[in-house]
Amino acid sequence: MRADEAYEELIQRVREEATLASIEALLEWDEETHMPAGAVEGRSEQLAMVAGLLHERGTDPRIGELLDELEGSSLLEDPDSPAAVNVRELRRDYDRYVRLPRKLVQDLARTTAVAQRAWSEARKEADFIRFRPYLERIVELKRAEARCVGYDREPYDALIGDYEPGITSAIVGRLFEALRRELVPLAARIAGAGSGPAVEMLRRAVPLDAQRGFGEKVAGEVGFDFRRGRTDLGVHPCCTSLGPGDCRIGLRFDRRDFVGGILTILHEVGHGLYEQGLDPEFYGTPMGEAASVGMDESQARLWENRVGRSRGFWAHFLPKAGERFPDAFGDADLDEFHFALNRVTPSLIRVHADEVTYNVHVMIRFELERALISGDLLAAELPGAWNDAYGRYLGVTPENDAEGCLQDGHWAEGLVGYFPTYTLGDVFAAQLFARAQRELGDLEESFARGEFRELVRWLGERIYRQGGRHPSARLIEVVTGGPPDHRPLVEALRVR
Amino acid sequence: MRADEAYEELIQRVREEATLASIEALLEWDEETHMPAGAVEGRSEQLAMVAGLLHERGTDPRIGELLDELEGSSLLEDPDSPAAVNVRELRRDYDRYVRLPRKLVQDLARTTAVAQRAWSEARKEADFIRFRPYLERIVELKRAEARCVGYDREPYDALIGDYEPGITSAIVGRLFEALRRELVPLAARIAGAGSGPAVEMLRRAVPLDAQRGFGEKVAGEVGFDFRRGRTDLGVHPCCTSLGPGDCRIGLRFDRRDFVGGILTILHEVGHGLYEQGLDPEFYGTPMGEAASVGMDESQARLWENRVGRSRGFWAHFLPKAGERFPDAFGDADLDEFHFALNRVTPSLIRVHADEVTYNVHVMIRFELERALISGDLLAAELPGAWNDAYGRYLGVTPENDAEGCLQDGHWAEGLVGYFPTYTLGDVFAAQLFARAQRELGDLEESFARGEFRELVRWLGERIYRQGGRHPSARLIEVVTGGPPDHRPLVEALRVR
Repeated sequence: MRADEAYEELIQRVREEATLASIEALLEWDEETHMPAGAVEGRSEQLAMVAGLLHERGTDPRIGELLDELEGSSLLEDPDSPAAVNVRELRRDYDRYVRLPRKLVQDLARTTAVAQRAWSEARKEADFIRFRPYLERIVELKRAEARCVGYDREPYDALIGDYEPGITSAIVGRLFEALRRELVPLAARIAGAGSGPAVEMLRRAVPLDAQRGFGEKVAGEVGFDFRRGRTDLGVHPCCTSLGPGDCRIGLRFDRRDFVGGILTILHEVGHGLYEQGLDPEFYGTPMGEAASVGMDESQARLWENRVGRSRGFWAHFLPKAGERFPDAFGDADLDEFHFALNRVTPSLIRVHADEVTYNVHVMIRFELERALISGDLLAAELPGAWNDAYGRYLGVTPENDAEGCLQDGHWAEGLVGYFPTYTLGDVFAAQLFARAQRELGDLEESFARGEFRELVRWLGERIYRQGGRHPSARLIEVVTGGPPDHRPLVEALRVR
Repeated sequence: MRADEAYEELIQRVREEATLASIEALLEWDEETHMPAGAVEGRSEQLAMVAGLLHERGTDPRIGELLDELEGSSLLEDPDSPAAVNVRELRRDYDRYVRLPRKLVQDLARTTAVAQRAWSEARKEADFIRFRPYLERIVELKRAEARCVGYDREPYDALIGDYEPGITSAIVGRLFEALRRELVPLAARIAGAGSGPAVEMLRRAVPLDAQRGFGEKVAGEVGFDFRRGRTDLGVHPCCTSLGPGDCRIGLRFDRRDFVGGILTILHEVGHGLYEQGLDPEFYGTPMGEAASVGMDESQARLWENRVGRSRGFWAHFLPKAGERFPDAFGDADLDEFHFALNRVTPSLIRVHADEVTYNVHVMIRFELERALISGDLLAAELPGAWNDAYGRYLGVTPENDAEGCLQDGHWAEGLVGYFPTYTLGDVFAAQLFARAQRELGDLEESFARGEFRELVRWLGERIYRQGGRHPSARLIEVVTGGPPDHRPLVEALRVR
């Protein structure tokens, strides 16, 4: 068989898998946004079926044969060529996938579908006991997954490696250690400053529908393409690709947190711009996908924090908010507003955290999920361990589990080892934004004019259209000239 | 192999097919309600993939072997037992399915996904030319389908038989002939009577959101279970089952047609009550499905017309509408209102037609689609033939194709041979309602007290929980004591 024929067959197969995966994404998105409560059992069967079909195709020995055929062929001479990149990444996916038994994959799909509903109800009632059996089962399945995949030092490495290839607990641990040394004293020094009228202003009531309307306008202005996407209300914010030309954003609003809603939209739009900016020619192959989950999160965190918390952004949007919501923001002063939205104060809820303490929230989750997977912590002990960690690192204690260990839905979704990608994303985002500033000049000034296209274009060329060409660390090096480095993040926080 | 083992394997297989079909239903429902325009190509690939998977499973020779094994076994001795019913119906499905090549099934899925979007745009622009190539392609594919399935007298029979087994063009033609003889003179005699203030009242503006809220209240009061279902706005009204516990209703409202919106909800809720009332024990098998499409439509038409146009129904809901919308209905007189909503007047749009002329609209579609499939009519000639027929039978002429041959989306969905099931449904509904009245006493009086449970319970026992036990004509006989008969429908219309 000729290499080009083998490559063509391989690509056709993975494209079909991508179509199947996009169907799975619709099932999940619908569960988040529209599905009635009574449908949860049926949905878990649907998801288990698609997981089984994906496994059947993704582990087909024919894929292994095609990869064998291609590896070492002259087609892959240039390691940065699309063919070489796709074969490199598909080999990694395949080698991982064939280690997972179909039953495990289907059990995970079935369990997480039901667990998400249970989590959502447990959270509403602030009742961890309701969620505990599901968490126990998920931890058990994820430990089994880690055993099947294999690891050098600890099982958690096998899970985190699925989201960020090449990353280990040890690397993440060192990153958090370095950040903690910088951020905890920084937080202590500036915490609580700037309370007062402007902070109260951020809590003024804005009707939910109007928030959504305003948020969609913001999304459109920064470049989200609504012809190829939409927004919906969901249990928790998310951004899902349902196939080419179909990027769905799930949103959540709070009457008394207008700014939080806008930052959430920017976060999800950051994912969405990446998704919509991928090269459609490579759809369904690694060259047409995000470089890694961490890189994907970097785009979300870049728009949320580097753009959404900037003075320039609000120089443009605050007057519009004042016009649209005169009672809440008619009298808003830009400097006070900007100061208030960057106020640092230790808090209980990750998604509402300021930028400085945010990564402490992530670190706590990293430590706890690592312990759950190693077996050092039992699911039953989670609420206590959670509250201890919040007391120790942030000096705050949840009053109940809804504002404690039930606040995030990741574990219910089976996302264990995912949290560290937020911090990696923050680190990457700060590096990329600093580089963009250097190349494009004063971005805040553009934002103040309502001009976001230059930044989107820059990210499009440097990041989006590169797809999976480079592993994330290498991509950072190609774009910024240096390896991943937490210092630009610390620097950005210090300046602000 | 023992018969009970064969049966178990057969049922497991068809249950998996049902899960796959419910995924297909989600893809279609999402296309109707939420999908962004840019996603249409991707969606057509997703639908083609699922159609292919369904075909692969549904035509698996193993199913034929299992059916062979079971037929003649003692397990099926009682022809009304669940096993006998399931084998009888699965044999029919299988024999039909294996005649269809996979490519044809996938082409149909792909084409109709794109055609629906094209139809919706063509309708918006009242521009048949935009839809014509899609219609041509669909007619071509449906003719191919008819050839593959086979037929005795004409190809259309092969299509109509998919929705209503045992029915032929000749039978439908005779039914329409009989109805036309009765209804056209009846319509002529009473048409136009009762114009005046009450008719104007039906055109009073009611905000769309409030209509939807009121409509959902009506749906809940008559018995639709929102824990196992939901409503959404869609391109056109529909009711789709996405699996057990997940019944979705698509709605459309018009500011100046409050009553039309309520009748639409009742129509779709009629489907929904049937769906929600099926025996969950038999989910995924013919015993857990509607007896036929015509029987399914009978439930929709029963709630829309026998209930929704009744004086009793509005005796209960008109005062509520008056309270909720005092400007529109605060001064409404029940008798005038009831008279107005049953006014007969020839019109252009099927879904807005009065009950007497409604089946003339259906008959026109039956004649035209029959001619399209036989080849006597070309797609290009459709607008002219449509307008001629409306002039001839109803004395009205569309001003453009949006109110002419583009008004319904059925053909774009590939539903050719479907329209006659509306009329069969009307006939069945009148028979069933007359029988229910005889057994339960004055139903209108119950409706006036806001009491619908008795009727739902009666239908639940007689129809819903019977599933596919009897073919539709036989089910009518079992429940009403007589064969299908158009006279109760004519009688009901005469009385009203």
